[in-house]
Amino acid sequence: MSLPPTLNWKGDARHGCLEIIDQTRLPGELQMLELRTLDALIEAIQVLRVRGAPALGVAGAFGVVLALREGAGLAGIERLADARPTAVNLRWAVERTACAAEGDPERALTEALAIHEDDARRCRAIGEHGASLLHNGMTVLTHCNAGALATGGIGTALAPLYVAHQRGLKLKIYADETRPLLQGARLTAWELSQAGLDVTVLADSAAASLLQAGRIDLVVTGADRIARNGDAANKVGTCGLAALASLFEVPFHVAAPKSTFDPRIATGAEIEIEQRGEEELRRLGPVQLAPNSAKIYNPAFDVTPAGRIRSFITEDGLIAPEEVFGWLEGA
Amino acid sequence: MSLPPTLNWKGDARHGCLEIIDQTRLPGELQMLELRTLDALIEAIQVLRVRGAPALGVAGAFGVVLALREGAGLAGIERLADARPTAVNLRWAVERTACAAEGDPERALTEALAIHEDDARRCRAIGEHGASLLHNGMTVLTHCNAGALATGGIGTALAPLYVAHQRGLKLKIYADETRPLLQGARLTAWELSQAGLDVTVLADSAAASLLQAGRIDLVVTGADRIARNGDAANKVGTCGLAALASLFEVPFHVAAPKSTFDPRIATGAEIEIEQRGEEELRRLGPVQLAPNSAKIYNPAFDVTPAGRIRSFITEDGLIAPEEVFGWLEGA
Repeated sequence: MSLPPTLNWKGDARHGCLEIIDQTRLPGELQMLELRTLDALIEAIQVLRVRGAPALGVAGAFGVVLALREGAGLAGIERLADARPTAVNLRWAVERTACAAEGDPERALTEALAIHEDDARRCRAIGEHGASLLHNGMTVLTHCNAGALATGGIGTALAPLYVAHQRGLKLKIYADETRPLLQGARLTAWELSQAGLDVTVLADSAAASLLQAGRIDLVVTGADRIARNGDAANKVGTCGLAALASLFEVPFHVAAPKSTFDPRIATGAEIEIEQRGEEELRRLGPVQLAPNSAKIYNPAFDVTPAGRIRSFITEDGLIAPEEVFGWLEGA
Repeated sequence: MSLPPTLNWKGDARHGCLEIIDQTRLPGELQMLELRTLDALIEAIQVLRVRGAPALGVAGAFGVVLALREGAGLAGIERLADARPTAVNLRWAVERTACAAEGDPERALTEALAIHEDDARRCRAIGEHGASLLHNGMTVLTHCNAGALATGGIGTALAPLYVAHQRGLKLKIYADETRPLLQGARLTAWELSQAGLDVTVLADSAAASLLQAGRIDLVVTGADRIARNGDAANKVGTCGLAALASLFEVPFHVAAPKSTFDPRIATGAEIEIEQRGEEELRRLGPVQLAPNSAKIYNPAFDVTPAGRIRSFITEDGLIAPEEVFGWLEGA
């Protein structure tokens, strides 16, 4: 891939820095940012210069190095873990790194590099298992961004596409623009085209006619949280794609590492759907899209029933929805 | 309704003018424009200050009054008929009015007023037939804008909602924002809320989870062209809504006057789908949405198979898809 890494620690623990792609500048401009202080990293997380659950985990781990070498203390560690409250990976990685470090930036860096490498290895494994589903000339539809920009590696939903591309397969990728925050248009289209893949952006609502016309061979998305029966929460719009894919008999796959599966949740009905701000639909930059006199409904996620998912593409291989429970139990 | 009319001739043929709502200023601002010259009207049509097939027909008819009193001659009439080449209603109404006028602005005005009144009457009839499908407390989903702003009356898809509202029914309306041109957010949400209806804007992709959850009682859209087997072309996204509605057993209706049915077309496969410009998806105002390195797929319409349509709401009543052929034949 000719993509720069989404996150990359440069140098040693004492003088080094975390270099990231500033995702707020995409797709217009590729700008790398060197984060040298805890405050700079927290700001970058809060304004979404770095985003995506796995990528936030990796960023948080490196942030512990910054916090310890500044002597920011437990208050600093807590501020970092809390920089985006809904990002469970962030808190998990910060706590794991802080525990392992015992106050030493060198040991924090060793742990953070291990977390980064582990994430990259899981992405690669997802990519290799998923690539077994792809053949030369296939047309693939994806939604939102579950790519390199969201992880410390080559992504989850996009990982099979990168692996297949490296193996010389020619694919045609359709990327839903993904309203309201346009992660498909801004991020997925950017990273796939940077890496030399053939990617086409379309309005979310235009995917249906492609599926109806038999022009899509496979749909793959990521997931934010998966219940132990296989119901999967992901970016709003995913459940509609899955329903249309099942109606038109197009295989629908969900790519996610094992950490996305939540064994405490029995079914999707237990997953609370975050409602996001009205402004995301009411305006875009300086342009007013909807009148102030109208209400706004803006759920961040929806839940795809397990029955519409052909398989989960995981680091352990392809898992059918009915196999999830046994796999999580280690059976 | 507390909506101003989308188009309204003020005064007599010799000194009057066509007043329109400038739809390019919506939803931010309600500005009325008085069009007194042929050039001003043609400009208004070309930059979409007035749009929607029936409304363009009415505007074109009044335009003949302006053309004749200016002595613009046949060249002027032709320029008007051609102001938006794909708008068949525009050419039809201009030619009909010019024929009836025989060069006399007074007779042109009489004919234009008749065309306007006829359009308003058909909208009202669609509204009354469609309102029979609605009950107090229902939740209705619509897509794009087939409302008062698109016609010389109370719209097509929105007409039943206005009639039900006038009869005192409480409805909850969801309006898809309708990417890429956002007619749902900008126009449908504006006109329904101006008229006092309870309207909520959502991302196009968020409708699926509402349908899946059983939170929508009825879906109604307009149509651009309907084949004699009942296949219906409408704004991109419509066929996906219809497929989801059928999967989740929600009635899906299409509201359109008889003039939208094209008896020369046997099935939807014969309807050519206009591909629109890349810029509509690549940027919005000053904001870049998709990178220049990605391709764009931007069809304006899709085709909903007749089998997914519960009924056509027309000025002659509710017509089932299998009844369309006989109805068009006058059987």
